[in-house]
Amino acid sequence: MPVNRQILLDNRPDGAATVGNFKLVISQTPTLQDGQVLVRHHYLSLDPYMRGRMNDGKSYAQPQPLGQVMIGGTVGEVVESRHPRFQPGDLVLGTGGWQEYSVVNVSEPDALRKVDTTQAPLSYYLGAMGMPGVTAWYGLVKIIEPKAGQTVVVSAATGAVGSAFAALAKARGCRAVGIAGGPDKCKYAVEELGLEACIDHRLHPDFKSMSQALKEACPGGIDGHFENVGGHILDAVLLRANAFARIAICGMIAGYDGAPLPLQHPALILTNRVKMQGFIVSEHPELWPQAQAELASLVASGKLRPRETIAQGLESAPEAFLGLLKGKNFGKQLVKLI
Amino acid sequence: MPVNRQILLDNRPDGAATVGNFKLVISQTPTLQDGQVLVRHHYLSLDPYMRGRMNDGKSYAQPQPLGQVMIGGTVGEVVESRHPRFQPGDLVLGTGGWQEYSVVNVSEPDALRKVDTTQAPLSYYLGAMGMPGVTAWYGLVKIIEPKAGQTVVVSAATGAVGSAFAALAKARGCRAVGIAGGPDKCKYAVEELGLEACIDHRLHPDFKSMSQALKEACPGGIDGHFENVGGHILDAVLLRANAFARIAICGMIAGYDGAPLPLQHPALILTNRVKMQGFIVSEHPELWPQAQAELASLVASGKLRPRETIAQGLESAPEAFLGLLKGKNFGKQLVKLI
Repeated sequence: MPVNRQILLDNRPDGAATVGNFKLVISQTPTLQDGQVLVRHHYLSLDPYMRGRMNDGKSYAQPQPLGQVMIGGTVGEVVESRHPRFQPGDLVLGTGGWQEYSVVNVSEPDALRKVDTTQAPLSYYLGAMGMPGVTAWYGLVKIIEPKAGQTVVVSAATGAVGSAFAALAKARGCRAVGIAGGPDKCKYAVEELGLEACIDHRLHPDFKSMSQALKEACPGGIDGHFENVGGHILDAVLLRANAFARIAICGMIAGYDGAPLPLQHPALILTNRVKMQGFIVSEHPELWPQAQAELASLVASGKLRPRETIAQGLESAPEAFLGLLKGKNFGKQLVKLI
Repeated sequence: MPVNRQILLDNRPDGAATVGNFKLVISQTPTLQDGQVLVRHHYLSLDPYMRGRMNDGKSYAQPQPLGQVMIGGTVGEVVESRHPRFQPGDLVLGTGGWQEYSVVNVSEPDALRKVDTTQAPLSYYLGAMGMPGVTAWYGLVKIIEPKAGQTVVVSAATGAVGSAFAALAKARGCRAVGIAGGPDKCKYAVEELGLEACIDHRLHPDFKSMSQALKEACPGGIDGHFENVGGHILDAVLLRANAFARIAICGMIAGYDGAPLPLQHPALILTNRVKMQGFIVSEHPELWPQAQAELASLVASGKLRPRETIAQGLESAPEAFLGLLKGKNFGKQLVKLI
């Protein structure tokens, strides 16, 4: 069996996460038992939700256990199989985590799914065609439920979720406005993603300034918002929300480091009769086929052209992940392992 | 035409509202024109939402204009009519405001409705059978949508809205828990309203203490919450919320005086996949008949026995209203004018 390199969570962050929270170890992949498959990972997905898992305490999911391989989505190739449904050479999507190989018990539901690389490149199944794309779809279609002509806003607009959201919103005739960090991302959001406007949050680091920027970018107010960030951005969106606005809460990356991140004006939820709803897309597996079918058609027609930032080699994963948390990535952050 | 006494909003509060914000004036009721009706008010309703209207600035409704009669629901008797649908002696519900008489243009939709005092006493149409009752119904039925056996919490539990909420929730087989101010109200909530438990918020004036009290009162967590207050109560409810909990935001009386009232842990909306939704019941007139039919049946069967606090005379309205904002009322706060 091949040698496997793995990255474990070694200790929990005290404030911001650091490379010292992780540890690289080398191990032997175990001999397969019946019903198991050995997958060699081609790409590892890095996603903001992982930061939440690094903390202890009550959350929507079990915290990432210490001393175990960091959780994460992976795409790769079956190299050995003791399950009749999989053959060596099959390209598969799974949650193999931060390691080069994984042994998968195929009997667990959704543990491993074959993917069709004639529809899209393998890596897209970690981004636009995978969890981030379906996340954008769920928030837009099931929570925001926009009508054509309505204004929707998305924070982290150029990320894997944000760019899929932009394409899905445009396909519904919405006026889509983004929020992103820095002039390059904002230029890309408008010129490549086709957003009506993009607000550089670095130029608007407080509530008052962000509110003013949103007022200018959304002169008719905000009908729907997809929140990836939290903090003063969410406060400002609430101020500019139209009556009966819907806010899908997907992430609050601004608060993941443990600093208190209050919502300053929750009374606006009442004033503007806002619906605000948090969700985790993995809890809605019945909707994935419908979502992925639409995402595949947007990819096929060129209306969704995901940008990727690719780090090389497993050992680069911690630095790439910390960069993602600071917005250093541009589009979907991946680690190429092979 | 009779002499009319009226209370106007004279100036806006700077912080807490005071009696000095109001002014009593005496005027002549004008001669009726065709299509108008003169109503003598028997009861004036005092409600927390009025405090919000006293402030200037963006809100769900126009601010109460300065120098005009304070807005408010009223029940009374038609004393003169120049509209064929109304006759002297008809008992009616309207929004006559803080005055003894009002002239109503009947052609405006829902300006004046006849009420059936064989179903319930006249004053109930300002409470359990009126706007507060329907408010409780909308939040429970349309936002919280509880299943039998689920735990629902209501703040301001012994008020007009809270007591109707309690009866409606019990009728659906929910485990209903209240929050109220002081031992008398808590005793009443359990013994008379039939709540499973009632938390005295005066004994739990901070997030940590309220969280602990909710944990003890709701050992299975919270599935639905009806928020009338805001502040640390809402924070604590979010902490104890079960996955997919629903929170109806009806009021945030704790923040009406203009002090900042942040939500300290909005990330819990995501962690617990909470739906939080603000609403104004007057925007959903199509649902009133359904709601009122259920409320009437609960009143008829004795399952909803509203308690009232009745101030005497128009001149007592400002003091009674300020008392309401401080929780000095017990049940529905009314002013008896006749």
